Amino acid sequence: MTITLDQINGAGEADLVTLLDGIYEHSAWIVRHAAGKRPFASLTALKHGLTEIVNQAAEHAQLELIRAYPEIACEIMHCNSLMAKSAYAQDKLGLIDFTSEELEELERLNLAYKAKFGFPFILAVRGPRGTGLGKAEIISTLARRLNNPVDFERREALRNIHRIAELRLNDKFDAQPVLGNQLWDWCEELAVHSEPGYLERGELTVTYLTEAHQACAQHIARLMRDECGFDDVSIDAVGNVVGVYHGMDKNAKRLLTGSHYDTVRNGGKYDGRLGIFAPMLCVKELADQAKRLSFGIEVVAFSEEEGQRYKAVFLGSGALTGQFNPDWLDQIDANGISMRQAMQNAGLSIDDIASIKRDPNNYLGFVEVHIEQGPVLNELDLPLGVVTSINGGVRLLCEVRGMASHAGTTPMGMRRDAAVAVAELALYLEKRAASVPDLVGTIGMLEVPSGSINVVPGRCRFSLDIRATTDQVRDACVADVKAELASICQRRGVQFELEEIMRVAAAPSAPEWQSRWERAVKEVGLPVFRMPSGAGHDAMKLHDIMPQAMLFVRGLNSGISHNPLEMTTNDDAHLCVQAFMHVLGQIK
Amino acid sequence: MTITLDQINGAGEADLVTLLDGIYEHSAWIVRHAAGKRPFASLTALKHGLTEIVNQAAEHAQLELIRAYPEIACEIMHCNSLMAKSAYAQDKLGLIDFTSEELEELERLNLAYKAKFGFPFILAVRGPRGTGLGKAEIISTLARRLNNPVDFERREALRNIHRIAELRLNDKFDAQPVLGNQLWDWCEELAVHSEPGYLERGELTVTYLTEAHQACAQHIARLMRDECGFDDVSIDAVGNVVGVYHGMDKNAKRLLTGSHYDTVRNGGKYDGRLGIFAPMLCVKELADQAKRLSFGIEVVAFSEEEGQRYKAVFLGSGALTGQFNPDWLDQIDANGISMRQAMQNAGLSIDDIASIKRDPNNYLGFVEVHIEQGPVLNELDLPLGVVTSINGGVRLLCEVRGMASHAGTTPMGMRRDAAVAVAELALYLEKRAASVPDLVGTIGMLEVPSGSINVVPGRCRFSLDIRATTDQVRDACVADVKAELASICQRRGVQFELEEIMRVAAAPSAPEWQSRWERAVKEVGLPVFRMPSGAGHDAMKLHDIMPQAMLFVRGLNSGISHNPLEMTTNDDAHLCVQAFMHVLGQIK
Repeated sequence: MTITLDQINGAGEADLVTLLDGIYEHSAWIVRHAAGKRPFASLTALKHGLTEIVNQAAEHAQLELIRAYPEIACEIMHCNSLMAKSAYAQDKLGLIDFTSEELEELERLNLAYKAKFGFPFILAVRGPRGTGLGKAEIISTLARRLNNPVDFERREALRNIHRIAELRLNDKFDAQPVLGNQLWDWCEELAVHSEPGYLERGELTVTYLTEAHQACAQHIARLMRDECGFDDVSIDAVGNVVGVYHGMDKNAKRLLTGSHYDTVRNGGKYDGRLGIFAPMLCVKELADQAKRLSFGIEVVAFSEEEGQRYKAVFLGSGALTGQFNPDWLDQIDANGISMRQAMQNAGLSIDDIASIKRDPNNYLGFVEVHIEQGPVLNELDLPLGVVTSINGGVRLLCEVRGMASHAGTTPMGMRRDAAVAVAELALYLEKRAASVPDLVGTIGMLEVPSGSINVVPGRCRFSLDIRATTDQVRDACVADVKAELASICQRRGVQFELEEIMRVAAAPSAPEWQSRWERAVKEVGLPVFRMPSGAGHDAMKLHDIMPQAMLFVRGLNSGISHNPLEMTTNDDAHLCVQAFMHVLGQIK
Repeated sequence: MTITLDQINGAGEADLVTLLDGIYEHSAWIVRHAAGKRPFASLTALKHGLTEIVNQAAEHAQLELIRAYPEIACEIMHCNSLMAKSAYAQDKLGLIDFTSEELEELERLNLAYKAKFGFPFILAVRGPRGTGLGKAEIISTLARRLNNPVDFERREALRNIHRIAELRLNDKFDAQPVLGNQLWDWCEELAVHSEPGYLERGELTVTYLTEAHQACAQHIARLMRDECGFDDVSIDAVGNVVGVYHGMDKNAKRLLTGSHYDTVRNGGKYDGRLGIFAPMLCVKELADQAKRLSFGIEVVAFSEEEGQRYKAVFLGSGALTGQFNPDWLDQIDANGISMRQAMQNAGLSIDDIASIKRDPNNYLGFVEVHIEQGPVLNELDLPLGVVTSINGGVRLLCEVRGMASHAGTTPMGMRRDAAVAVAELALYLEKRAASVPDLVGTIGMLEVPSGSINVVPGRCRFSLDIRATTDQVRDACVADVKAELASICQRRGVQFELEEIMRVAAAPSAPEWQSRWERAVKEVGLPVFRMPSGAGHDAMKLHDIMPQAMLFVRGLNSGISHNPLEMTTNDDAHLCVQAFMHVLGQIK
């Protein structure tokens, strides 16, 4: 029986409990609490409201909720149990074909899981597409989550419970995320193109101008042309796929949007591609309704952002801002093939690269949707986040040199231990960075070269990566870290060297475009959450010539990226397309 | 004109200044201060007294003293200067054959040195043997010391000034360290035996039962027999060279002593060998005077202590305590040669190994002289130190596992940074170890495996090495460090693993034997300084079956060991032989 938002908003408390029975397992308290939060403006708002109630509950209530869910192995083995007839068991359709060996493995992991965490392993087995995970995926997820810290895993269990609730609500409301399903499927379909050596292992690797890369370009161009109804689709001289959907006036200014279709080696399916397909779906929606806006939409699938095959990065978006450096053509890949040669092999016209440069007068601005590539939205159970700035970063390589000496014979007071000096700096950096919102500082590389167990470290090499929403905040931190290092080394009688190897300016979002994303997020029924982008994106390049602003989509699995575990849900994908449509609707 | 101790002790203050003129450059204040410290019991006591006066002076006085010494390059180039006629210039005999290129290099380094430290480069160019360093050695020492921290180098300059003073005093008193010269020369002569591949580069490598190793055994046996007058010299079944000098009664109990003659790869010339030659010189002194004691002296040059060719360590001394494990015979070296084969090739009789085991009833105890292999005596300007205990050590290999994540997109509050957790432990360990005398704790190996500049460390591997004079003190520290690691990891939501890979019990010195060393040190005119041995020594093995105590001899160059820079002076070597003679004299 399908229910409606009006029913939810209008029901008495007892009726509400009945209406939402089974959304969260054995937990009428959540529904009763939700009664007081009505009216909900949308199904999305209802989902978010329920999520908040659970997340703000006391830890014991959360644990009780988690324990109300049956164990997966138990559930599968005793499918004639009471719970097997519940809505929850419906989520597990297809699970009964486990072999007895697989069930044994599942049971073994389950026991270990329960022993470690004290609650059963909860998994939304209908998964991110809502259609059911494979057996192997269920077992590997359990094995992986077994390694999580306890407090983290409690929240991961709740996240799965929220996802189960979302899928149940979609069913109850008969509200399937159609656009999100399409986007998710397109990402899946595009991922069939991968390079030899990776493809066989089911890994995704699409680096610049390889066969897989060219196949992706053709694939995207075909979708733009045949599925979405773009007016004009072409592949430019650096391999960008450009789709134009004219405004009512063909010569009207255009909104520029897009992201990249290349990937890192063994990367994820959403990094970049989400930002190509989201506006393509918007154009498809418009074209399907034969609707024209007062402005054109130009979607660019950038050919290169990751810098994997050649050293040049942001090559695709850089070509639009006139930053393609002809010297790059002589860069050589790992097989000795120059970029020039690769372009010629791909049939690209090198002479036309300069003409790719866009005149900003023809554009309203640039917007980009991207998977977050970080844990923030996932941790907050928020599908969307509005980017305030693409952080500016500074990277340094450093070495502290003390005096190597015998670990047994050198008294503590006579040491010049290079590693302990770096340890002191690491703790300072952690504290300094944490003291300012949206500032991050990392020692990612750390090594005592040729260290021996019985030798006081004479050298310690490390890296520094410091990023902030503004260059001022970042530079103040870099200066403080340098001063602290000097002071530590002075006090400890050791020496240091620093080499700055990268410096990228911050790209703050254009206020009017950021506001459009904020209004769009509100429109879909979510609270506005503002956050910086810690990673670089194509929008950073376009920032040089026009106003830009980005929208982030939650990444599952702690927002892991550049990894096959990178994941979004059909529902989140749907929300980002909806938000994009709202932005289009706001432009006058 | 030779002067005597009586003159020093009897002179008026003005005369004393004249008598000791030029011992320290332009620094009559030192002598005037010394006047109040008289009488000095020996030349060694006088040297030590002057050293203390300088070391306790204010920093500005020390710097003034350092600046009173001319620059080496300047001195060499302007050998017709006033200073060239000074006693100081005498120390530089042989320096005038520098080529102009060498002088240029020296001048360049000198300028850099002065710019960094603010004082001239001071070097006792007559060196540790008192006979003059080579040109290459002078230049390389200058280049090396240029890397020292400023405060360290000020003390290194003073140490060289003390050595210059010592050499000048030896000349003034016509008191050459004859036994020390002999010991030093023996170490030099034994070092002609080195393994192919090292010998050509002037490096010393003598690992178990190689040709160089067997040549060393023959060399030592010959010295014992032909130079020292031992009654009985033999090479035993594991390659130990055993020299016996009988007491008045051939069957009298013996004092057991000695150290090892094998070396690490590219090692030093004094590690082990000093402890063989010192008692050999004592026997030589006795034999030269046809003097017999009430007890015998058995000097063992142990064939193996360093564990370089085979995994077995303390093989030589272990054979005396019955700890030779027959399984070791099957150990294989890097070239696939088993220990059994190596022994057979060397003509050793494996069947006789068990019979090497000593009956403690036949021995008074075991004493061992060894170069310190640490910086303590060098830093204190003390030639000798009495060992209180050979430290007991525990070694652990550890790993902290957090969650790798993007350095740009993971807020500080959401990180599970494995490296920062280890950094916290490193600072705790440093503080904890420093809070107890003679306790040391070291993280010698430290690594973020496959760390990337833009990834928050998900793993950090490190080692722990904790040593103390007693097992109780050590174990208390190990327990505290483990508890702190657990607490840090709990708080940070990361996990850790520890694996103990080594545990060696402490070997405290036998009080009566330690007292004998203490009295001996006093007898030669030095203050008694007690210290633990941070490194392991053959005495650790003998500790299992008889009372033992060790004497340490200062190592130059911060006590560096297992390195060609390992160094002792002829004067320090002389004092250790003298002290050994005093110990012999104390035994009833």
